[in-house]
Amino acid sequence: MPNFEHHVFVCTNSREPGSARGSCTLDGKGDLLPAFQAAAKEAGLKGKVRINKAGCLDQCEHGPTVVVYPEAVWYGRVTAGDVNEIVQQHLIGGQPVERLRLPDACVNTATCEHKPKPAAAPVVA
Amino acid sequence: MPNFEHHVFVCTNSREPGSARGSCTLDGKGDLLPAFQAAAKEAGLKGKVRINKAGCLDQCEHGPTVVVYPEAVWYGRVTAGDVNEIVQQHLIGGQPVERLRLPDACVNTATCEHKPKPAAAPVVA
Repeated sequence: MPNFEHHVFVCTNSREPGSARGSCTLDGKGDLLPAFQAAAKEAGLKGKVRINKAGCLDQCEHGPTVVVYPEAVWYGRVTAGDVNEIVQQHLIGGQPVERLRLPDACVNTATCEHKPKPAAAPVVA
Repeated sequence: MPNFEHHVFVCTNSREPGSARGSCTLDGKGDLLPAFQAAAKEAGLKGKVRINKAGCLDQCEHGPTVVVYPEAVWYGRVTAGDVNEIVQQHLIGGQPVERLRLPDACVNTATCEHKPKPAAAPVVA
């Protein structure tokens, strides 16, 4: 098999404390990556699905963030409690978990409802 | 734009010294990730292409390894000197750099010509 059926990238990045953008993990590790690895192994997906540690996926305001390729499905605010549902429904069943998907309007955009608004330009008298 | 045109994952994993599988970096950082980031920025790809740090992509024998999604093009033995060619020809021009591509027979397989052969089973008299 030349490629993984699904390649799951789990952001483990930790931004500086108090960052306005938020942070996918507090400690650069988090509990999401090991939860995905354990669930995929338990489901017999070794060799078919790769669960991968990733650096910053640049969707910090929606974190913890996960992206699944090659289908480019983005998930946001994922918790360890969501992992089995993603593994069973998406990675095995082929149906993304819609309640956790990031809307297109929120992915790779400069502004969205979750991102801090840019400061208004000062009024020069 | 909801998705990146290309999402480039650069393995920065460092295996234990002397590992038979090899290692994509010696220090967990390497020079490939910053080379890709600089070249993509210089080429004006910000917002279109994401250069991403990745943990082990599990193709260690062919490292340093890079995978580009959503097209799932795998590159092996990539050096910083190859980066501009990948950026210009693939990420901008849409044509993968064939001389650096990993053959399907080498990606996500238990054995290939670059991987250590499993030890033969001992002969029991």
